[in-house]
Amino acid sequence: MAQLTLTALPNIPLIQPGDDLCAIVLKSLAEAGVQLQENDVLIVAQKIVSKAEGRLVRLSDVIPSARALELAEALQKDPRHVEVILQETKEIVRMRPGVIVVEHRLGYVCANAGVDRSNVAPHGAPDDDCLLMLPEAPDRSCAELRRKLREATGVNVGVIVNDSHGRAWRTGTVGVALGAAGVPALLDLRGTPDLFDYPLQVTQVGFADELAAAASLLMGQAAEGRPVIHARGVPYPLREGNAQELIRTKELDLFR
Amino acid sequence: MAQLTLTALPNIPLIQPGDDLCAIVLKSLAEAGVQLQENDVLIVAQKIVSKAEGRLVRLSDVIPSARALELAEALQKDPRHVEVILQETKEIVRMRPGVIVVEHRLGYVCANAGVDRSNVAPHGAPDDDCLLMLPEAPDRSCAELRRKLREATGVNVGVIVNDSHGRAWRTGTVGVALGAAGVPALLDLRGTPDLFDYPLQVTQVGFADELAAAASLLMGQAAEGRPVIHARGVPYPLREGNAQELIRTKELDLFR
Repeated sequence: MAQLTLTALPNIPLIQPGDDLCAIVLKSLAEAGVQLQENDVLIVAQKIVSKAEGRLVRLSDVIPSARALELAEALQKDPRHVEVILQETKEIVRMRPGVIVVEHRLGYVCANAGVDRSNVAPHGAPDDDCLLMLPEAPDRSCAELRRKLREATGVNVGVIVNDSHGRAWRTGTVGVALGAAGVPALLDLRGTPDLFDYPLQVTQVGFADELAAAASLLMGQAAEGRPVIHARGVPYPLREGNAQELIRTKELDLFR
Repeated sequence: MAQLTLTALPNIPLIQPGDDLCAIVLKSLAEAGVQLQENDVLIVAQKIVSKAEGRLVRLSDVIPSARALELAEALQKDPRHVEVILQETKEIVRMRPGVIVVEHRLGYVCANAGVDRSNVAPHGAPDDDCLLMLPEAPDRSCAELRRKLREATGVNVGVIVNDSHGRAWRTGTVGVALGAAGVPALLDLRGTPDLFDYPLQVTQVGFADELAAAASLLMGQAAEGRPVIHARGVPYPLREGNAQELIRTKELDLFR
């Protein structure tokens, strides 16, 4: 009987710049009585990866450019916040008062280039003076955590860094994979016959996104604070992969 | 320790028009040794709901309109297939050879108005002569299954009908909720403080979509044939809801 079990790892402390996520995850796994197995996947919230990697910017250190000042007025946002968004942005996709949707330098189309004000509080900085950017290279963050976990346990697990993104045509955010290692981000079912041997029309599944969404459900968005989810029973063999597989290039995008 | 367990219900037979999904689900639950509890959710694949509701059209019975003939040439599709898509369509959103993205009469923006050729084989019809449309009213399908399950077991469960949709900016399909009953489709976290009492910026979560994606992962897309998933441990109290909550109206859509 196929079963997928997602467990929120307990007692993950507030993460500070420089923290060793691998050690923290191993400690929590031990407390939860979970022994890693091949084909397990760990899904880690972007926020704690960004924090551990020190991807914080103090608003008071930001000097907005002329362009940021101009856009900030149209957007009704803090110009320093807009400046940091622009620094993480390849191209602005849509803009309305209060909303800026961009192509992030890593290729994701998302709101505010993933630059967030909530849930941020590094050592000593007041809450409302800081912004948190996405990890420098989330696929690399995943690969590093995967490597360290293998070194510590001898087990190959998949690792996903997830975040919540809005969608073009649907309300609400859903979890998506920003980074992945050791999991197929996109599952290619091209040519797989269906129950009646009729070739499947829908051929590529956003596997890591579906797992990211499942984990997001359990993480909660607010005070619950469950930033690491352990998944067991993933019904596909794991393989190498990265979240860049999930990015639709501008040339193939019908909606820009 | 928060845990979400998804179980693919075993031995679901091939569904035929007129089949009683409630009886089939109850039989499978019994075989799996699962006793329904309050706050459990059942996620049911659109395909079997559509089949049970007889939402099949025989291609040989379809007479394409002039418009379908014209579009079929541009789309390089069977004009009869295009005709059925148009009958389910409120508005064409984008069109390229091989691809038609529409606003479905129920409001979803999706490829081919959800009209699918794969996995369809009603009594006596050859596989490649049939199309399957989305359920007439998926929220109603969910509400009915929920009501019947409550009558049979005394337990209030949530029900979601899911399907796989493409995304504007990301490759691969992910599971989304076409219908829902007894679950919050959209979870409104507006005003919920985060760990540092900073009001959350991202305020609405596509809860039923995240659960639909999780289930989709376990369903597989092809020969596995696991069309009903039981979810236990959903970390929010269930309430009334419907999947129309998840539809962004055209007026609020920045991408049409």
